[in-house]
Amino acid sequence: MRRVKLTLQYDGSQFHGFQRQPGLRTVQAELERVLSAITKADVKVVGAGRTDAGVHARGQVAAFSTASNIPLERLPLAINGAFAHDLVCVRAEEVPADFHPQRDALGKVYSYTIDNSSLPSPFLRLYALHVREPLDLSAMREAAGLLLGRHDFKSFQGAGSSAKTSVRTLRRLDVETTSVAARPLIIVTAEADGFLYHMVRNLVGLLLEIGKGRLAPAEAARILAAADRRVAPATAPPHGLCLEKVYYASGRC
Amino acid sequence: MRRVKLTLQYDGSQFHGFQRQPGLRTVQAELERVLSAITKADVKVVGAGRTDAGVHARGQVAAFSTASNIPLERLPLAINGAFAHDLVCVRAEEVPADFHPQRDALGKVYSYTIDNSSLPSPFLRLYALHVREPLDLSAMREAAGLLLGRHDFKSFQGAGSSAKTSVRTLRRLDVETTSVAARPLIIVTAEADGFLYHMVRNLVGLLLEIGKGRLAPAEAARILAAADRRVAPATAPPHGLCLEKVYYASGRC
Repeated sequence: MRRVKLTLQYDGSQFHGFQRQPGLRTVQAELERVLSAITKADVKVVGAGRTDAGVHARGQVAAFSTASNIPLERLPLAINGAFAHDLVCVRAEEVPADFHPQRDALGKVYSYTIDNSSLPSPFLRLYALHVREPLDLSAMREAAGLLLGRHDFKSFQGAGSSAKTSVRTLRRLDVETTSVAARPLIIVTAEADGFLYHMVRNLVGLLLEIGKGRLAPAEAARILAAADRRVAPATAPPHGLCLEKVYYASGRC
Repeated sequence: MRRVKLTLQYDGSQFHGFQRQPGLRTVQAELERVLSAITKADVKVVGAGRTDAGVHARGQVAAFSTASNIPLERLPLAINGAFAHDLVCVRAEEVPADFHPQRDALGKVYSYTIDNSSLPSPFLRLYALHVREPLDLSAMREAAGLLLGRHDFKSFQGAGSSAKTSVRTLRRLDVETTSVAARPLIIVTAEADGFLYHMVRNLVGLLLEIGKGRLAPAEAARILAAADRRVAPATAPPHGLCLEKVYYASGRC
């Protein structure tokens, strides 16, 4: 048996999230179906993170074990041929037999894209949250700085989470501007040792309220300290979110 | 009655093209429905070009007449609120009562986007044609140069066209490279006094065959001179195509 690590990109718009769910098109279920067909055996896939419906990935990691001797350099093409380009496998590598994409991860990076133009763009509707009100980036950055470090992020944990602890180390929460095809965009980049359920979308929900001037930047510290989801603003919608990268110890995979 | 010119952007993925068709979601039908609701009267919309299903627009022009006195600066917001951001009205202006978006147009510009990376991108699947084989840009440019000018473009006219003549003046057919979010793309830009049905997609179909080395650049002149659709390569798919701009005489609208 070989253990294979896949690096995946997908447009989450047409998937009901990563995790297998009866009767629904999910990334895990589609990958298992396609890999089972390619390897002619029942394949179980494990992922690094369970992205929700509508959430995208540019660097999701998944793994499976197989007795098939298909050359790994041919695997991405075989996988990609089975999807209408909304999932693309960019790399397949052999890894140690006990590699687990989620447990072995040292950290993850997510981006959240905000289109802050006065009018929305039809070409970003699936990939960026359109916010009409002008956002105060320096206020958002001040608040983001207050959230960095090792904290109990319970105020930003979505209901229904099974995590044992809500303590995480938020290493980076940057609010940057960029432009795509001459259109200015705001990108919030979050990096942590791990994220709670809905954590990035809840952090972005808070930053948006602060950017709109409805909350002062200092409120971020108060909401974090409360360790109570009910005191934090609403969850930002899924379609601005993208899993950019999963980090592993060098040599581990 | 006021005559109103609308400048529109849309993602063509979820529309069955511009033109009204019974029982199908088209740009014209949706606009007529929405404008009739806004102005509380039956509205007929005319467009500058009949984009096909899957074809996008960043500068489509449409016009309608109305007795409503709604302030025109409020019209884009009212229209945009009725669409799930896949159609965006960027401007509404009053124009002379006899303005006709198609008959009055002096020219149009279309772009065709090609993603020539070895692997496709899930985020471009609706907006760019993925071509895996490396394309020879200088061969494509040489062929494009042979097609410029005033010619009978019958070899590039799709079946079912009702145009009186297939003579058009192709003012520009550029093959350029750009990059979007660090990904290199090829953009073919076509400008003419008017385009025949499927003309841009047929020109791109030829340029792709030349870029892949299956036809020599000089074949472009031979195929043009034949004035016979059967000698030209297949039509390129719709989703790479975008109506960028419609030109009018200054002061006309």
